[in-house]
Amino acid sequence: MQDNLNFLEHRILEDGSVQEGDILKVDSFLNHQLDIDLLDQIGATFWHHFREKGVTKIITIEASGIAVACMAARYFHVPVVFAKKTMSANIGGSVYTATVHSYTHNVDSQVIMSKKFLNQDDKVLIIDDFLAKGAALEGLSALVQDSGAELVGAGIVIEKGFQDGGQRIREKGIRVESLAIVERMDDTTGEIVFRNED
Amino acid sequence: MQDNLNFLEHRILEDGSVQEGDILKVDSFLNHQLDIDLLDQIGATFWHHFREKGVTKIITIEASGIAVACMAARYFHVPVVFAKKTMSANIGGSVYTATVHSYTHNVDSQVIMSKKFLNQDDKVLIIDDFLAKGAALEGLSALVQDSGAELVGAGIVIEKGFQDGGQRIREKGIRVESLAIVERMDDTTGEIVFRNED
Repeated sequence: MQDNLNFLEHRILEDGSVQEGDILKVDSFLNHQLDIDLLDQIGATFWHHFREKGVTKIITIEASGIAVACMAARYFHVPVVFAKKTMSANIGGSVYTATVHSYTHNVDSQVIMSKKFLNQDDKVLIIDDFLAKGAALEGLSALVQDSGAELVGAGIVIEKGFQDGGQRIREKGIRVESLAIVERMDDTTGEIVFRNED
Repeated sequence: MQDNLNFLEHRILEDGSVQEGDILKVDSFLNHQLDIDLLDQIGATFWHHFREKGVTKIITIEASGIAVACMAARYFHVPVVFAKKTMSANIGGSVYTATVHSYTHNVDSQVIMSKKFLNQDDKVLIIDDFLAKGAALEGLSALVQDSGAELVGAGIVIEKGFQDGGQRIREKGIRVESLAIVERMDDTTGEIVFRNED
């Protein structure tokens, strides 16, 4: 029995499931069906963590980061800019690019963000739904660095604490606030254990 | 001079631009950078149109539809389910699939939605940022039809009225509420003229 779980950890235990291949399935509320009230509470929690940092932009990566980023942005009253995975007719002019390695699909890809939406006067909060090996977060951090903006930190909904992304990124001096950190999970028993932050 | 423009049409004239190839560029507020206050107002307007229809689910298609759908869902107090463009480890079990032809990229693709999030008891509102030739909306409608759910209608942010998607879909008896309908636009002069709904 785990004590002192927060609202998100309770929800993960209730509706999440562990599947083979280190997959934590939360498609009923976070990355396929979206529970808007839960996302609102997540957004408010990110606001609580970063409210005194003068955030001017929230950035994320398509697709499932967009919902969380938007719900957080309501509290910060700042725009969201989402990095795109494909160059499209909707992006013109100069762009920042960064390489992201998808461990899920085992491919390298480029993410793209128009330069006009991020510059050295910005204070940027990165928001994403998952942090595992850290590839997406590293890509987004690289975009921020290229722009000359200040990276205030990263707000993550669920971190897989048993993978190395979180540690590696924190060691670079980047502040990472994960609302739930899974310390270990087991697809045979279904057990999910969270890191105790107390 | 166009009279009686709504908040969105004003914003399109102010910050949108017309580019070669029938592209209406609104990346500074709708599909790359997201103006959250504007999206909130858009969401409230969809609520106004469909509030008496007993909507139980809002569906959309990744990526840029997600933001608008989430902001609308806050008013309806229902979940969002977004159709995915790629099968991923996050989707398991039975899925609905539909074919969507992207006129922008000139390719056919499948969109996928887990069957467990849509069924015959649902009353579904489709939300999307653009309606042009109607491919995405037809794909989403097909998913709803497969599920046996009732399609309440579609809330579209910007419709390109000079393309045939809106007319074709309305002729099928589907209610489409577009917050701005571009009657014509010209990339050489930059002119944008909206359909007068009065």
